[in-house]
Amino acid sequence: VKTLHQLGERTLICRLARLLPTRADVRAGIGHDVAVVAGDHTHDLLLKSDALIENLHFLSQTPPRQIGHKALARVLSDLAAAGGEPLWVLINLVAPHSENPKRLCAIYRGLASLARRHRIAVVGGDTTEGPTLELHVFAVGRAPHNTTLLRTGARASDVIFVTGTLGGSLRGKHLRFAPRLAEGHWLRAGRWATAAIDISDGLATDLAHILEMSGVGAEVQTEKLPIAAAVFQGLETEGPDFSKAWKSWARSSPRLGKNPVTFPKVRKQQAALAHALCDGEDFELLFTVPRRKAAALAKAWRKIFRTRLTPIGVITKQKPKLVWLANGQPLKFRGAGFEHFR
Amino acid sequence: VKTLHQLGERTLICRLARLLPTRADVRAGIGHDVAVVAGDHTHDLLLKSDALIENLHFLSQTPPRQIGHKALARVLSDLAAAGGEPLWVLINLVAPHSENPKRLCAIYRGLASLARRHRIAVVGGDTTEGPTLELHVFAVGRAPHNTTLLRTGARASDVIFVTGTLGGSLRGKHLRFAPRLAEGHWLRAGRWATAAIDISDGLATDLAHILEMSGVGAEVQTEKLPIAAAVFQGLETEGPDFSKAWKSWARSSPRLGKNPVTFPKVRKQQAALAHALCDGEDFELLFTVPRRKAAALAKAWRKIFRTRLTPIGVITKQKPKLVWLANGQPLKFRGAGFEHFR
Repeated sequence: VKTLHQLGERTLICRLARLLPTRADVRAGIGHDVAVVAGDHTHDLLLKSDALIENLHFLSQTPPRQIGHKALARVLSDLAAAGGEPLWVLINLVAPHSENPKRLCAIYRGLASLARRHRIAVVGGDTTEGPTLELHVFAVGRAPHNTTLLRTGARASDVIFVTGTLGGSLRGKHLRFAPRLAEGHWLRAGRWATAAIDISDGLATDLAHILEMSGVGAEVQTEKLPIAAAVFQGLETEGPDFSKAWKSWARSSPRLGKNPVTFPKVRKQQAALAHALCDGEDFELLFTVPRRKAAALAKAWRKIFRTRLTPIGVITKQKPKLVWLANGQPLKFRGAGFEHFR
Repeated sequence: VKTLHQLGERTLICRLARLLPTRADVRAGIGHDVAVVAGDHTHDLLLKSDALIENLHFLSQTPPRQIGHKALARVLSDLAAAGGEPLWVLINLVAPHSENPKRLCAIYRGLASLARRHRIAVVGGDTTEGPTLELHVFAVGRAPHNTTLLRTGARASDVIFVTGTLGGSLRGKHLRFAPRLAEGHWLRAGRWATAAIDISDGLATDLAHILEMSGVGAEVQTEKLPIAAAVFQGLETEGPDFSKAWKSWARSSPRLGKNPVTFPKVRKQQAALAHALCDGEDFELLFTVPRRKAAALAKAWRKIFRTRLTPIGVITKQKPKLVWLANGQPLKFRGAGFEHFR
């Protein structure tokens, strides 16, 4: 193995993680959505960083305010899944010397607007010349001791819930989404959820993360999945030849283009499903709730939030088996979410 | 102004900083070496991030372990100047898919070795495909309430001290330096220093930061400056034509090449001085101490540290005037440290 292309992001992270030291005051480190470390006598600190890179996470024609919004919103989405309260942010900016300062100001206005909405302070960072525009956002948040929602904690018979809709985020949502901070905070504070993650690489990949870290399996009823309207818009404009349509969608999407999902038999329903499972950048919450609390949760949720909430399946003992069902019948689905370098 | 090249890094930061929100619990934000925010009932939290980019901060032939060492050491140098204790680190890695995984592992070993030495945990980060190799390091540290050493706080008649030697860092020191964590911690804990900064952009630039933020001036006795041997090695191999020698040095150094220091009359002594003042990446501590404590500090220092300590001048009331003296005579020196995009 001589390149990252051959190795892939996940194997790389495993290899690097083994080399790195930890401390006794680290409650959750590498492998989790956010790091959890000892804070004060009432709260843990949550640490999270994410990168936003031109031509990968946004394009040169993307409205600058949306670039800034997305840079911060991505990190906030992870804190939301953890149920944390974001507090302070640092930004490392990389830009070519030919970059237009007005565009940068507009990017920062988009970021500042979201920061203000959640009472977050931008307290520092670094500015460096580099080949392409990048924003690296580092956020510090907090949550009361030992209450942070993590990928671990899902148990057999828990009900799996997802917020909002899935798929087709590239048609606009990935630049404009509102991180589910209020929902995540409520889930954590009410001790409703046993595990949670935000869907950034697609439901298929992110649910697998929960299963792996919790040592459980899952059955998902695919007919229940809240597939975004944007997915069907895409399929309709693509015409009746769905095999061709799929390839064209994959080509038009830089993220999908790199990891085309392979179908044994491509059908419209399956194409829509593949989008919902694999597109990524949904930035919705995926979480598990003990079965005895599930009905009460759904009722309480509807009183507080307008955000759609859908039970999509259950956690099973068969670790780490992930079974996709269509009206009770197992579905042969082999897909993968987004992975860097591949 | 249509490009960052025309605007420069400092003006850009001023413009962006104005757009960004803060919070009541932020004790020091943008404009400081580290951000200081409310921690627990005994300590403040210190937050710092820095970027390390291929072909700017290191070259493709740089030994990989030194790349990792430098990535972390740069951030620790800022925490050292603040007198802080580093605790947790996140790393955003950007790499092309053609990158060799073995080189990355070696880079992380260099970083991990330094982290272990200072009992720092690497708790997370992000891995992304991008055009060039970059390491963005985010560090969280702490210091007892209201004791963090900042750029503010220098007062007229304070003595200015510098650790180690200055200049010529590109001949190797910039990749191998030990961040002055023990020294910074001792300075803060003993309440010796009124202000402090680490010298990353050159003494001329970094002293100016202290003067500006403290609202004071300074007189520096240039004949006292501890100029690194590497500077003179450079000059000697360059031969007797120092004007030419200077240009050749500037060409051979990517950082200097971008901001060549202009001399009215280039002489050997001045060339050496210019290196000491402007090369940057010395990663030494620059700090101010009340006059009445200066002798006691020097005595106490020698008992504990082998690190060289040199008084180089005094703080004056004439803000923000920075006077360079050579044996009591004012020196006409117009130089500038490193600035991105220019």
